[in-house]
Amino acid sequence: MTGIRRLAQELNVSIGTVSRALNGKPDVNEETRKRVLEAAAAMGYVANQAGRALRKGSTGVIGFMMQTGHEITGEGDVFFMSVFDGVQTVFARHQLDLVALLCSSEEDPDAYMQRVVARGFADALIISATKREDHRIDFLAKRNIPFIALGRSKTDAGHPWLDLDFEGMAEIGVSRLIEKGHRRIGVFAPLDDTNLGFVFVDAYQKALARHGVTFDPDLVFRAHPNERGGHAIAYAIAAMPADRRPTGFVLTNEVMSLGLYNGLYEVGLPPGRAIAVIGRDSPQAHFLVPKLTSFRLSLRDLGIELAESLLATMPLYAEHYPLGIVRKLVGLDLIEGESDAVPFREMTLGA
Amino acid sequence: MTGIRRLAQELNVSIGTVSRALNGKPDVNEETRKRVLEAAAAMGYVANQAGRALRKGSTGVIGFMMQTGHEITGEGDVFFMSVFDGVQTVFARHQLDLVALLCSSEEDPDAYMQRVVARGFADALIISATKREDHRIDFLAKRNIPFIALGRSKTDAGHPWLDLDFEGMAEIGVSRLIEKGHRRIGVFAPLDDTNLGFVFVDAYQKALARHGVTFDPDLVFRAHPNERGGHAIAYAIAAMPADRRPTGFVLTNEVMSLGLYNGLYEVGLPPGRAIAVIGRDSPQAHFLVPKLTSFRLSLRDLGIELAESLLATMPLYAEHYPLGIVRKLVGLDLIEGESDAVPFREMTLGA
Repeated sequence: MTGIRRLAQELNVSIGTVSRALNGKPDVNEETRKRVLEAAAAMGYVANQAGRALRKGSTGVIGFMMQTGHEITGEGDVFFMSVFDGVQTVFARHQLDLVALLCSSEEDPDAYMQRVVARGFADALIISATKREDHRIDFLAKRNIPFIALGRSKTDAGHPWLDLDFEGMAEIGVSRLIEKGHRRIGVFAPLDDTNLGFVFVDAYQKALARHGVTFDPDLVFRAHPNERGGHAIAYAIAAMPADRRPTGFVLTNEVMSLGLYNGLYEVGLPPGRAIAVIGRDSPQAHFLVPKLTSFRLSLRDLGIELAESLLATMPLYAEHYPLGIVRKLVGLDLIEGESDAVPFREMTLGA
Repeated sequence: MTGIRRLAQELNVSIGTVSRALNGKPDVNEETRKRVLEAAAAMGYVANQAGRALRKGSTGVIGFMMQTGHEITGEGDVFFMSVFDGVQTVFARHQLDLVALLCSSEEDPDAYMQRVVARGFADALIISATKREDHRIDFLAKRNIPFIALGRSKTDAGHPWLDLDFEGMAEIGVSRLIEKGHRRIGVFAPLDDTNLGFVFVDAYQKALARHGVTFDPDLVFRAHPNERGGHAIAYAIAAMPADRRPTGFVLTNEVMSLGLYNGLYEVGLPPGRAIAVIGRDSPQAHFLVPKLTSFRLSLRDLGIELAESLLATMPLYAEHYPLGIVRKLVGLDLIEGESDAVPFREMTLGA
């Protein structure tokens, strides 16, 4: 008797039910599924899913490609793990497993993506760290592999994407600081060609123009997107002639605020007093003094939306998520803190 | 002409070289490998590696199983990402890819592991969050799947493992606080049956006994291993009768210190003044005031050692890493801070 037949007999359910439960199909009662999986485990039944994936073109695995590396995740990650939390909540409904595909920053993401696809272990992909022109998008679209991008790109294959509303952050951040009397507003941009850098700096320039403030390229600070990067920006500011320095700063990265704060204290330009700071919220940022004025979004909700928008494009799951092709900017809320509370004319500018 | 043959002809190298380059074998010149992969990509050659994995039993992928969930990684992760950084450094030498297998805390890790193995997409596994008795160890050993455990377990299959020296942290932390006059020393333990909780509390009790101090179970604080967990411990301490509270605390988790500090300030028991704190180092902890006395290790080096110790057990790579079966405690350095600098008799105990 084959394993699956024996399981059905033991549990007094149909072979079809056992098969659907083992294959993670959604149309099985949760209680039954649990019984089947437990009995299967007890009798040591392990389906050969690599073989099954080849036959059926379905693996039950969805890959999330993220960039890793010493300067990116070497000090930890407070973004992707929280997004994963939301993604897994959705995938669990369909017995889909999430695996994180860790692409080292020292590797070409296009070659990595080709290898992932060649290995054929994922039914669909979520890609992140989208570049201004991103070959992965065309590559996946051409092969009809379901995917969603976290981040916009100029490369358009009619594919679904979600992105943060960097334009909104630029507009709100710049307007707020200008209303408080600031004219020299610094911003952060990444060192590489990640699209978010272009999108944000573009929106920042437009926001300045709307307020009649001249753009100064010296106020765009390029750094690694980690705490040391924030720290380095503080020293770059201190090294500028006092009248060329920014008096306010908008930081769209969630981990750099701690480093920026610490650096600003060290160079004698205390945040909130000598330089106004607007940043991104994170669990760690809650411990900053003065309280950081920050842009906040629920990363878990972002993960949920990302997963549902991906499943909406997959025939097996689309009926549950009639969303069509989602292409959407996710807005952030401004949380008032004390780090930009002092108006420019009352600030005590450092040496 | 097959793709591989055409590639060899175009590049003027042997078919064997093309095959070895495409298969990520280490005995190919790096320059040649790059040329082959680029040419393969240009001509759209994507080997069917799912089929190949079945035939050859080799996928070029190594999985790192980690626990995720709202209470675990929902606020980010400053441990695994840094370990991955080291693991990838080693794997890159052999064109091996690391994927993170994200096992939700709401799922049975044994069932998850069986599914991972059934899917057959990884050549070897690194498992973490080892439990006191861990079925995954027997499961993998029985199937001759190469693996290493990050964390000890009572389940012993003669397998390789690395773990942090929790005994050392208990001994050094307790001795330091007792020397400063403390007798009531609080410690953290996880809520679940992760083995590190048992190992540490055990060592803590032994360290107390060596110094003739009676163990008080009320001083073992169970909480979620995140910032909110640290914060909750502060409130639990404040809720105790003043003479039953710990006057010193040893915290072996790297993310909880921020929450503990914040909570202690809120309840009027400032860290370093009303309660001495020894914690674990992290990039975020560097911003704490007063400076945290902490245990430090290089997580990147831990990742490197973990990867090399795993490859040492795999026939394809063992010759490069003649380490045998590694079973080792990794020591941590104590970094002196200000959070336990004030001797007990000079402390200003809160209300």
